[in-house]
Amino acid sequence: MEKGAGVITEGIESVPEGTVTTPRGFLAGAAKAGVRSDWDKLDVGLVYSEAPCVAAGVYTRNALKGASLLVSMEHLEKGSAQAIVVNAGCANCSVGERGIEDAIKMAQLTGTKFGIDPHEVVVASTGVIGTFLPMDRIRRGIETIGVSADGGMDFARAIMTTDTRPKHVAVRANGWSMGGVVKGVGMIHPNMATMLCFVTADAAVTQPFLAGALKDAVDDSFNMIDIDSDTSPDDTVVVMANGLAGGEPIDQGHADANSFRAALRLVCTDLAKQMVADAEGATKTIEARVEGAATREDARKAAREIVMSLGVKTAVYGQDPNWGRIISAVGNSGAAMKEETTALYLSGPDGKEVCLYSGGVPQAYDPEAAKACLAPREVRMRVTMGLGEASATAWGSDLTEDYVRLNSLYTT
Amino acid sequence: MEKGAGVITEGIESVPEGTVTTPRGFLAGAAKAGVRSDWDKLDVGLVYSEAPCVAAGVYTRNALKGASLLVSMEHLEKGSAQAIVVNAGCANCSVGERGIEDAIKMAQLTGTKFGIDPHEVVVASTGVIGTFLPMDRIRRGIETIGVSADGGMDFARAIMTTDTRPKHVAVRANGWSMGGVVKGVGMIHPNMATMLCFVTADAAVTQPFLAGALKDAVDDSFNMIDIDSDTSPDDTVVVMANGLAGGEPIDQGHADANSFRAALRLVCTDLAKQMVADAEGATKTIEARVEGAATREDARKAAREIVMSLGVKTAVYGQDPNWGRIISAVGNSGAAMKEETTALYLSGPDGKEVCLYSGGVPQAYDPEAAKACLAPREVRMRVTMGLGEASATAWGSDLTEDYVRLNSLYTT
Repeated sequence: MEKGAGVITEGIESVPEGTVTTPRGFLAGAAKAGVRSDWDKLDVGLVYSEAPCVAAGVYTRNALKGASLLVSMEHLEKGSAQAIVVNAGCANCSVGERGIEDAIKMAQLTGTKFGIDPHEVVVASTGVIGTFLPMDRIRRGIETIGVSADGGMDFARAIMTTDTRPKHVAVRANGWSMGGVVKGVGMIHPNMATMLCFVTADAAVTQPFLAGALKDAVDDSFNMIDIDSDTSPDDTVVVMANGLAGGEPIDQGHADANSFRAALRLVCTDLAKQMVADAEGATKTIEARVEGAATREDARKAAREIVMSLGVKTAVYGQDPNWGRIISAVGNSGAAMKEETTALYLSGPDGKEVCLYSGGVPQAYDPEAAKACLAPREVRMRVTMGLGEASATAWGSDLTEDYVRLNSLYTT
Repeated sequence: MEKGAGVITEGIESVPEGTVTTPRGFLAGAAKAGVRSDWDKLDVGLVYSEAPCVAAGVYTRNALKGASLLVSMEHLEKGSAQAIVVNAGCANCSVGERGIEDAIKMAQLTGTKFGIDPHEVVVASTGVIGTFLPMDRIRRGIETIGVSADGGMDFARAIMTTDTRPKHVAVRANGWSMGGVVKGVGMIHPNMATMLCFVTADAAVTQPFLAGALKDAVDDSFNMIDIDSDTSPDDTVVVMANGLAGGEPIDQGHADANSFRAALRLVCTDLAKQMVADAEGATKTIEARVEGAATREDARKAAREIVMSLGVKTAVYGQDPNWGRIISAVGNSGAAMKEETTALYLSGPDGKEVCLYSGGVPQAYDPEAAKACLAPREVRMRVTMGLGEASATAWGSDLTEDYVRLNSLYTT
């Protein structure tokens, strides 16, 4: 265990500076290929596994899907993959048949480079919608990249768009490890957004188990964050496991099934929170916990609606304990709600909670104490619905003038 | 016909400076009662009809409902009303049983003033959530207001919160007239928001017909606008018709049925667009027209999603023809969509359209011409889906730094 590593939860410890190349057998690298308008940035990245992987993906629910995503969805249908090729600077979306041809070409170039079937290559593109990929530059990029066991951080940098920092994490458990990277800080929303997330693992795992674990992990992480309630056509989460840690493949009932699920959930939640923390223009992260909801879906809807509400986002930014907006968001969520049984708490910097609202009526509280709850970089609130046992947590960013400035000037 | 009046549509003409007191028999007035923190503003308003009215209402879908709204819903259940009492400065929401008692008291005071049954009084409150009504001030306000046939504009001013101007309209058709006022410029969203709208008419009309016509008019107007995708617990649209214009009550099949429906739709659409034009911090109105959708609901969803997208709102603010965000919003709406049959047009200041996207691919267009489409105060865009015959129009505001500033400082 390296210096700085820590046990996160029983049997799972974090790997400092961990990334997609932390699990054994995964190599990565990136190049400045000139796809971006800013030539001095990495913009084409590769991940390669020395052994074939079982793989699974979760994709945007936007009816408009990027061409690279469409090709990846087809490649991943068989449940395996061995490499990933990504470009930033261009989403390869809304560009007709040529987009599909270009994405297939990216897979072919990557397959040729590593001597693998192009159908084992996952392709992803992120950036502006409606422009063609500069295939000559992408080809040169793919050809020049040298992949290595310490290339994960370069890969994390190559996929950034308006992200201000690379986002990565890795954990280790019971002889196997798992690493992940993500990009995306705008158009982030429940049901995914302009995000790309790649998770690698050296555990041996069956494909159906991997696919199920990914879906659950995404539901509790990427599908519970919101920056601006938008969903992009390129959102993708892909997990690949190469089995180099050995042992019987993990499946339902395997001794490691729970820790693998927990590790995937930890990796996805950690990356999701990194996205929110780096949200375009944001100054704060909002964590909304809903408890006592009638159903799990109600808890999820209410928690998400809180972090999606522009009224809440701006009030948090202004450190204004305008709690009516939070309760109104819950009412607006479609979740079953009774005013008489609903209560709202803000977490104070001292760890104590301030109750602003309970039993359908405002509570007497110190306005300065309430305001102080909104001062930290991470603002936490909790709503108890008093209707059942279900709970959920969602994370969002505040909304600032800088968000507006960044987004009113993106392509120009 | 006064100077300045104009025919809007066949048989219906606008009444310049028209408001809720334009129809005969409606009196209104307002007082500075000190409910608002800013004492120098009108904040309690009354409307009174000299004859009993048939009445109908449409209300917020927020599970959290203000106490005044709950009382009004009960009063309007019987389909009649004769007076309206409104206060700004306090939403009378999330304040428990006392909120209900206070709203009933407002109805009683108004009933006593006019010598009518308190159950014939519509009560509405708008402002900050979670504070109690200052009933002594409200009582004095109700008692001191003098209602008159030219008090409609004072009433329109008394209901304003962050509105920068009163919003009112009136039309006349075939011997009867209809007037309306509205307030609300933030928390505006499909399915209503922190808005109050009151429409009066001197036509004779049956209650079931009035209720049906109102529902349809609201669906095409207030339910098709968006400022910030929020919905408040107090949203209310109420229409009252006192029949003083005489004649057989308008019902299905009556010669005036279509013009009454058209007039109500015109009044509601005009007021809805006034709300969007006065949206908090906004510099522009966005009109999104969706045509050729597979179903009416698809057309409505797609049009609303465009005007709700923060990506679109900020791009319009920045006059940035980032059309991918518009197409992505359509894809995100849940409406059936095929890239190959979808096209996007921006309306130019010269009335000509610029096609940015068609058949699934970007079109060659002059970037300066596209940018010019986003320069006017009213930006218009049209998406053709190529899947059917259904169409819908939605209106939204752009999103600016000023919106953020206004909303991060509302209660403090």
